[in-house]
Amino acid sequence: MAKYSETIERLIARFGKLPGIGARTAERLAFHVLKSSPDEALALADAIRDVKTLIRPCRVCFNPTEQDPCAICRDSRRDHGVICVVEQPKDLLAIESTGSYTGVYHVLMGCIAPLENVGADDLTIDALVERVRAGRSTKLTADRAREVILATNPTVSGDGTALHIVSLLEPLGVKVTRLARGLPAGLQIEYANKS
Amino acid sequence: MAKYSETIERLIARFGKLPGIGARTAERLAFHVLKSSPDEALALADAIRDVKTLIRPCRVCFNPTEQDPCAICRDSRRDHGVICVVEQPKDLLAIESTGSYTGVYHVLMGCIAPLENVGADDLTIDALVERVRAGRSTKLTADRAREVILATNPTVSGDGTALHIVSLLEPLGVKVTRLARGLPAGLQIEYANKS
Repeated sequence: MAKYSETIERLIARFGKLPGIGARTAERLAFHVLKSSPDEALALADAIRDVKTLIRPCRVCFNPTEQDPCAICRDSRRDHGVICVVEQPKDLLAIESTGSYTGVYHVLMGCIAPLENVGADDLTIDALVERVRAGRSTKLTADRAREVILATNPTVSGDGTALHIVSLLEPLGVKVTRLARGLPAGLQIEYANKS
Repeated sequence: MAKYSETIERLIARFGKLPGIGARTAERLAFHVLKSSPDEALALADAIRDVKTLIRPCRVCFNPTEQDPCAICRDSRRDHGVICVVEQPKDLLAIESTGSYTGVYHVLMGCIAPLENVGADDLTIDALVERVRAGRSTKLTADRAREVILATNPTVSGDGTALHIVSLLEPLGVKVTRLARGLPAGLQIEYANKS
């Protein structure tokens, strides 16, 4: 089988490693880069490099950020006594865009999923427990950890992760709550899921 | 609407500019890069940069290559008197992988498609005419341009491009042929296309 020159083959292989990108799409992307203006292609290369060099998990909440601690954790107008636990940065974003939550966050960076080889140790659960423990013993009333809201996804793995976290946080005496579950607003009952 | 930090948003926007990548996929790719090992992410960035800096169109046939002229154009065992004209580098590859063509190529880098704003001037047609003209007047019998095989796609735009090239090459007195058209080998007649 004939091949493209080595540099092009390497780019195709690299694109092919991205999730959901097959061999055909990888080839199409590589030739798009080849055809596009140098500025545009190098801007993509720089954006990838910047994300790896400038972005770090926030040392407090693990949300990816350029400034450590992140803008939310540094914001003194927010209630640092209420911690909302989410699976992914995009969940944090979804809650932020409602504009009605004023507490802080903790990003687990996934959920416990044995079938995908993700265990409790691969997440930031230990850091959460440590954070709540420190928050319980602080002398500053404003920063005292009062409530942990578990906003994991209402799926089997999300629920499992939440149960695991509950069992770790209960001995600390902090109030642990979960998001309400039920019919979404605006639903027509006849179209509700059976489960 | 809440946003990710600026560096992440920029990478999402850059991925979103690639063909066939929507907003959701771009976000997924950006977070994959964020999660992946630095080596892997930087290898992708380097591969993009290398393709833009190391790869140039071959000065003879316009196939993307690291060495100019490309390996095929430099190969003295090939018949430089026969030029196969293809639309894309991947068409060249398809013909090369048959292993039965020993001539050289000319890559148009597309086909005339007015609806997509691609005119004859955007392709390498002028360079092809110039190449054939020079090939007709050379004193070296081996390099003398004897035949141009038009291997454009059997589509409306491919056929149109071929007709345009025929009209330009005919005055030069070179033999111009096209790939045979008909039933593909192994077809069952009952399943043949109607058109």
